[in-house]
Order: sequence, then structure tokens, then C-alpha cells
Amino acid sequence: MRLRATTEIQLSTTQPSAIIAMLRPQSGSGQWIVSEAYDLKPLLAPVEYTDVFGNLCQRFLMPVGDLEIKVDCVVECADQIATAPGAALTKPEDLPDSVLQFLLPSRYCPSDMLKEEALQAVGDAKPGYDQVEAIRAFIEHNIEYRRGSSNESTSALDTYHERKGVCRDFAHVGIALCRALLIPARMVVGYLHRLQPPMDQHAWFEAFVNGRWYTFDATQTEPRGGRIVIAYGRDAADVAITNPFGPVEVKGMKVVVEQTEGLARS
Amino acid sequence: MRLRATTEIQLSTTQPSAIIAMLRPQSGSGQWIVSEAYDLKPLLAPVEYTDVFGNLCQRFLMPVGDLEIKVDCVVECADQIATAPGAALTKPEDLPDSVLQFLLPSRYCPSDMLKEEALQAVGDAKPGYDQVEAIRAFIEHNIEYRRGSSNESTSALDTYHERKGVCRDFAHVGIALCRALLIPARMVVGYLHRLQPPMDQHAWFEAFVNGRWYTFDATQTEPRGGRIVIAYGRDAADVAITNPFGPVEVKGMKVVVEQTEGLARS
Amino acid sequence: MRLRATTEIQLSTTQPSAIIAMLRPQSGSGQWIVSEAYDLKPLLAPVEYTDVFGNLCQRFLMPVGDLEIKVDCVVECADQIATAPGAALTKPEDLPDSVLQFLLPSRYCPSDMLKEEALQAVGDAKPGYDQVEAIRAFIEHNIEYRRGSSNESTSALDTYHERKGVCRDFAHVGIALCRALLIPARMVVGYLHRLQPPMDQHAWFEAFVNGRWYTFDATQTEPRGGRIVIAYGRDAADVAITNPFGPVEVKGMKVVVEQTEGLARS
Amino acid sequence: MRLRATTEIQLSTTQPSAIIAMLRPQSGSGQWIVSEAYDLKPLLAPVEYTDVFGNLCQRFLMPVGDLEIKVDCVVECADQIATAPGAALTKPEDLPDSVLQFLLPSRYCPSDMLKEEALQAVGDAKPGYDQVEAIRAFIEHNIEYRRGSSNESTSALDTYHERKGVCRDFAHVGIALCRALLIPARMVVGYLHRLQPPMDQHAWFEAFVNGRWYTFDATQTEPRGGRIVIAYGRDAADVAITNPFGPVEVKGMKVVVEQTEGLARS
Repeated sequence: MRLRATTEIQLSTTQPSAIIAMLRPQSGSGQWIVSEAYDLKPLLAPVEYTDVFGNLCQRFLMPVGDLEIKVDCVVECADQIATAPGAALTKPEDLPDSVLQFLLPSRYCPSDMLKEEALQAVGDAKPGYDQVEAIRAFIEHNIEYRRGSSNESTSALDTYHERKGVCRDFAHVGIALCRALLIPARMVVGYLHRLQPPMDQHAWFEAFVNGRWYTFDATQTEPRGGRIVIAYGRDAADVAITNPFGPVEVKGMKVVVEQTEGLARS
Repeated sequence: MRLRATTEIQLSTTQPSAIIAMLRPQSGSGQWIVSEAYDLKPLLAPVEYTDVFGNLCQRFLMPVGDLEIKVDCVVECADQIATAPGAALTKPEDLPDSVLQFLLPSRYCPSDMLKEEALQAVGDAKPGYDQVEAIRAFIEHNIEYRRGSSNESTSALDTYHERKGVCRDFAHVGIALCRALLIPARMVVGYLHRLQPPMDQHAWFEAFVNGRWYTFDATQTEPRGGRIVIAYGRDAADVAITNPFGPVEVKGMKVVVEQTEGLARS
Repeated sequence: MRLRATTEIQLSTTQPSAIIAMLRPQSGSGQWIVSEAYDLKPLLAPVEYTDVFGNLCQRFLMPVGDLEIKVDCVVECADQIATAPGAALTKPEDLPDSVLQFLLPSRYCPSDMLKEEALQAVGDAKPGYDQVEAIRAFIEHNIEYRRGSSNESTSALDTYHERKGVCRDFAHVGIALCRALLIPARMVVGYLHRLQPPMDQHAWFEAFVNGRWYTFDATQTEPRGGRIVIAYGRDAADVAITNPFGPVEVKGMKVVVEQTEGLARS
Repeated sequence: MRLRATTEIQLSTTQPSAIIAMLRPQSGSGQWIVSEAYDLKPLLAPVEYTDVFGNLCQRFLMPVGDLEIKVDCVVECADQIATAPGAALTKPEDLPDSVLQFLLPSRYCPSDMLKEEALQAVGDAKPGYDQVEAIRAFIEHNIEYRRGSSNESTSALDTYHERKGVCRDFAHVGIALCRALLIPARMVVGYLHRLQPPMDQHAWFEAFVNGRWYTFDATQTEPRGGRIVIAYGRDAADVAITNPFGPVEVKGMKVVVEQTEGLARS
């Protein structure tokens, strides 16, 4: 499936402020960036680097006043996500080195405090993929999606008890419960085609079972493809699409994701 | 200063369990490993890898029964730690890429929830080194060192309010308050010469000001050298000296750190 | 300066062949990729990875038949390159770790065999920048630019003695002579605005003196900006824009580089 | 098998000279460093870093006068090396990203100039392991081991034609012929138990077939274990055990490798 995704952000600041943005999806094994444009008005000179998770990060110093960021990409991605009912747990001793960090508790996913809850959520599901699916279904059925019900400090522990949240919170609960069962799990931010309006950037999670990462999204009733990954992290702390260091206000943000038949713009 | 440090750990398990250990200090710009021995009884075949923070990690599968780990090192390290009263804050836009991750909140250092507390702790100290020193002194004077007062789930927020903890908790508070002021801070575990008995592994923190990392230790009244670094991380979640995945019990642990005049053992 | 650069390549193969391409410039400290498109006809599913030099590499399996690759980018880059007459040699002990590999001899730059020649070329130029400029000028004045005068196996040693070559050979000689004097040097492939026709991809070199990399181009009489870097390497072996593993024939290649005033295409 | 290996090197210099040493074997999937000592007399303060191949490198500035380096390690390693007659070639499209660089020609392994020779050497051996073994046997039977027959500039092309060399040259020919057939190959330096006297550091090569690296040593008539790996590289340029930048003279070098039954020295 070929998708075109656009994010426009209007920022304003009263002091020069450093900003780190993660707005450039990368080509990899699961998606191919056919074309891409990254505009800053006024024109700044960002510098790009790769963080420890492999994400492309853009750094720049925003001057006093307004800034408009417009990122536009055309991406070839999978129509459907892989599922693997019954697939086995990868034992800790068999995990790749690079995956081990996704077993550790993190700011929003204090998995060390949710062990009982994780056992309850999975019941007698078979260790591995089925446990993750049980966790996903548990969230879908027990946590209410409600805009504005959480804030920047809300952790998976909070959401688990308050039983409401948004996509980011759903992902945090999924990640924390997986890690509590020794299943590596990571946060994903990106775009989802035909996300229920209002369109926005989206968050979901991946779990590592049976030797690879699988996609899970507790905000959806069915497994769905049409996803563009922008960044991976331990939790939302690692994958803020813009991380300002100063009094930067977000004046507006608009996201559009649509299927396209065309070739790359040229 | 040349130090010899030894850690002996006795473990026991009723099921084969994967273990990740971080028990091998590395030579670097601040210390030189003159000699080192790493014994496992019974003899296992560990595999070593480097994590995202650059730490050497040893992985192995512990069989049912007992395991003794004995790590012994002779290290040339600095007699005194560098201090820099008055040294300036490094602005976010001037931080090296690799340092940026140490601005983010983490499991035990929810810096996003301690902003007011950080401002209070530093008062009118000059931005930069003096703020970090003010934070260190605040902890030294306001938080009581009490063994057994905290556990594995205790965060800097908990310690800040309960006003008691151990070295790990002191470091967490220091890190969280620094990050709340946009000063990168990281956890260090290692050895400290003449640590007040009982000798154990120790934890402290480093803050990045004036273009480099400086060492701070809120458990000590004076800046002190004689430190061997074993591992760095965002917080204690990243630097467990042994991280078992299974019903592994720690039966005993003994740490010895002493000054030595000799050359490397040969 | 804002440049638009386009590369179109027509390939043909009689057997399915793996190809590694390096055709995607990266944003970094010296350039910003405003927009970019990467088309393959027929549509393939490339996977992208980063090599040890930090270059983005695209891997795909080319099926039997024809393939057209069209890469198009708009890049904000420097109008002028930095020069630093008189700037000092960085002593080997002060070189950053990551730069040390560019002191070693490589396939096309056998610096170990050109020590005398390097000393001759620099004469009594001051160690550092002036030596590199002397090397560059030596090449400009002593080696004739002649298309077709070299081939894929031509090394800097060959070119030094035969006194003719193309941009790649000029760069190889520059790199080899620098390394022979313990000045780190690396190969650059990319685009140069207003390269003398016929327009093509271009190659030059960078040398590390006075704590940073400087650009040198022995094919030009004056230092010139308007450069887009595609890839860095030890020499041409590392930076082939397409590296086919099979009977792949290049049927055509066209490169266009032009200044543009517009914003990113959207 | 448990081996103890010691290297003692005496150096002398008339000018302060930077030195990069690679004398510290690493624990990994194939070997475990039980204990290790690294002495410098006089005592210097080396800094350690990891190069692009993952090797530990020690940097220091040698003052005028004499320096003695003594490195001593006890290593648990495999008694026998794995062999896999008949194992298939890994096609270029299936190679891991990190292995691709070992297909490229390098300073001492100009594989681009040895294609015909490679085809001749393998005859009709089955693509994959058997080809590499044919190459190894070709070298064993056609190239004479003769101390002093080569020097620092001798490449695989030279050795192929001159038909004599030492272990380093044997490895270079093996690597170059493998790469010419699109089989990734890399240089290994290390220790071999019961190497025919005089004992010295040793060099051999690894080739990547059937999804993993296999060890080949054309200086030996039988596959033999008892190997300690110190460093990997594209060829000898990458893995010099000491790389001095200045007028450093090697006054003496002594290597001892012996089997040991004891535990780590403590």
C-alpha cells in the first residue's frame, strides 16, 4: 500500500529555544520512503543525528517568533500486519542483545509494579504471541478511549487503574504488561491509514515473540496494516515528535494520511 | 591511585535462568584496567556484548543449583575528582548528540514531575555546575541515609517526599532534579575507596555542564576520588549488576575495595 | 545555496542480482535535505541500512530485465567551502577515535608506498592545512584530467606514476599523500554545482587538520562550494553509487545539478 | 580448552610518539576471557576505544625512551573449530548488513584483480564452504611458508605470484580469493596453541558461508582449535597489534601460549 502522510506544526516562542524533532520516517525492512519533503519556515539549518534506537532526529535552534514545520512523505508499506497466533515466547536467553533493553522498566512503563496485573490479564493464554494478544484485548475491552483523559505525566500504572486514556496510554499499558511477563515490548509512533477522525499522529506497540517483532494496537478491533513508523523507543519519553527546550507553544498541528496511487512526486 | 576491587556473589536457582551481569569495568578516558579476573563456579560459557550506553554485559544461562561469581580487578584511577565551581551550563543546543538522552525522564527519575522542587533546591545558584552542587548539597542535608528505607520500586519522587534512602536513591534524586533544569545527568555504579562500612558496590551520578561530565556524590561530604566506574545508565533500571530472568536468589555478596601498590598480578 | 540534483540510472541484468546502492544524501552538519524522491521502476522493495561510515545504503534484489533508478533531491548546502591557510596539523595523539581509521592505507590509497612522494609534494609547507593544499595543488598541476585514462583497478600509486586520471583518481592521490604524512583523509562522492560538462557524479577528498575536516578538490582551480555529499569512505571501494553482485550492465546514467530558488516540492 | 597467552613487547623511541595497540582479546560468542593483565612500564595512562570492527584499541603517547608492554590473558576457547563440508554459499542478498563490507577489496586483498585466479583455485568445488576449503588447500599446497619472504607492502596479488609468504600473506590470499567469488572474508589476528616454533602472534582468516563465519588457516594441514582471537579486520592494515606514529623501534617481542588447568589467577 502506498500512503502519503503530511504533518504540519505551528510553533511559537518568546525565547530562542533548542528543539529536537523526530519527523522523518526511515526506510527499513518494513517500509520504503518513496519521497519526502521537510520544510521549515523560516528556513533554519537543522542538523540531523541518529539516536540510540536508530531514529533520525533533527536538531535546530528556534528563534523568537513563529515557526512552521511541514513534513510530507510518500511511503510504500504493508497492507496487513503479520499475526502469529500460537507463536512461542522467545526465552530471555535466546533474545538478541539489542532487544534486551526493551525488557527494562521505563518512565511510563513501570513493569516492575504490574506483575500481578499482567498475570491476570493473560490468564491461561499460551506463553508468547497469545499472551500479547490477550493483553491487547484486555486493554481494548477494559480501558476506555477518551481524549483529554491523560496528560504528560500519566504512566501505565495510572492508566491501568483509571481505566481511560488515549493511544499513547494504551500502548504504555500494553508495553508494561508485556515486560512484566519478560516479553520485550517497545513504543511506536507513526501514522495509521484511516485512523478514526480526527486524524493525528498515532502510537501503538510492538512485542518480540518467536524471534521477531510483531505489531499490536489496542485502539483497533482488528489487526490493520497501512502503518508508517516514524520512531521507536522504550516509551513516549523517547519518541516525542517535537521536544522543545524553552517556552515553545504549539499553536496548531494538522496531520493528513491518505492512500495514493501515484509515483513519487518529481 | 591504584585500587583493587573484588565482588563475590553467591546465587541459587530452582530453574535454569538467564542472567545478565554488568561486572566488568572498562578502560576509558578516566580509568585503566590493569588486570582483571572473572570466575564462574561452576564454569559456564558467558557471552559478552555492549549495551547502548557502552557497558560490557555478560549473558549466561544459570543451571539449577548454586553459582558463585567472583570478579576481581586492579584499576588505575584518579585520586581526586574534578570540580568546577562557577562553570557554565551547557545550553541544550550545544549538547553533544549522545548526551541528549540523559535529559529525558526515566523509570526512577521522573524529572517531569519535579520541576518546582528542582527550582527550590537550586535557589539562586548560578546556572551550571553550581546548580548541580546545590542539588547535591540539598540531598546531603535533607535526605537521610538509611539502609532498608527503600526498595526496588522507589523512585526519586518517592525519595524526595520520604526524605530517606540509600546511595541509589540519592543518585536518583540528583539526576531527576538536574534533568528538570535541563542539565543532562546519568547514573553511575561502581566502587568507592573507603566507602563507609559495610563495603558494597556504590552508586552516584554525573552531570554534564561546561562541555563535560562531572562526578557528584550526595552520600559524601567532600568531593572524593578513588572511584572505579562499572556502568553508566539513565537510572538504576539500566545498570543492575546482575539481572536474573527467573527465580534466582542472592545468597550472599561481598565487596572489597583496597588500595594496592603492586603492579598487575602476573 | 539551494541545489536540486537528480541521478537517473538504467540497469539491465540477465540474472537476478543483489544490488547495494548509495544514492541517498543525508542531512547532517553541513547540508540539509529539503526534499527527496527515490523511484525504482519496476517498483521493488529495497531495505535500507547504515554502513560503518554512516552512509545510507539501499539493498534490493534486481530481477531479470531492466531497472530504472531515479533519485531526486533538493538540498540546502554551503555557498563556499571553509579554508584555513596556516591551520596546524592535528597530532595523532589528539585525533578523535573515529578519525583514526582514515590514517590507514586502503585498496586504492596505499599510503605506505608513497611516503617519499608525499614529502616531495609538500616541500617545506607548514605541517597541517598548508601541506594538504600543497598536495592538492601538486595534483592539479602535475596530473592531467583525462576521461578514460583509468579503470576500476587504478590505484593512487598507478595514477601518481602515470600522471593522468579522473576525479576519483585525483582524490585517491590526495588521500594517499595525506595519509603518508599522518594526516587523516577520506573520500567523498557527491554532486558539485557547475561541474564542467558533462555533468556527472563527482569525487573529492577531505583532510582532517586543526580539529576538523576540510574539503579539497584537485580538479578545481579555486575552492568552491555548492557541494552535496552522498557518501564518505576510505576510498572508492567503499562508496560505489551502485554495487551489483551479478551480471548487471549500466545502460545509461544521467546527472543534473542545478540551483533552485523554490521551496521543497510539495 | 583453557589457554594462557602472554605477549611481551619492548619498544624504544627518540621522540614522543602516539601508539595504538590492539592487545586485548574480548569475550564474545566464541571465547571467554577468564583473566587478563595489561602492564606498561613505565606506567602510562592509556585510553581505550572500540573501532568500527568492534576491536578494543588502546591509545597512549609513548615518551622518549623505552617502553615495555606485557599482556597476559587466560581464555576459555573451543578445542576444535567448526567445519561444514558441503555448506551452501550465502547469496549476497541474504548476507547480514554488517557482513557486506567484507566483500569489498582492501589494501592487501585486491580481490578485484584476482577473479580468474579465484575461479581456477576452486575448480568445480560446490559454491560455499567447499570453495573456501579449496582456496585454503590451494594456498597450503602452492604457497611456501618462508619467514622473511614478504614485507609490510606485500599484497595478496604479490604473494599469489611470488608463491611464498608468512601467515599474514596466506590469510591475505585466502581473503582476496574468497571475495573475488562474492564470499565475505575477514582477517583474524590472535594466538594459536602449539603453533610451530618460534611462537608468535598468528594470523588466519574467516569466511562467511551458510549464514555464519567459519575459521580457515592455510598454514595448518588440519582444522585446529585452541585459538584466541585478538582482532578482526578487512586485512592486516586494520589489525596491527601496535601501530606507532613516530620513530618507534621494536627491540624485542616474545609470545607464549600454553594450556592451563587452573582457574583464573586471583
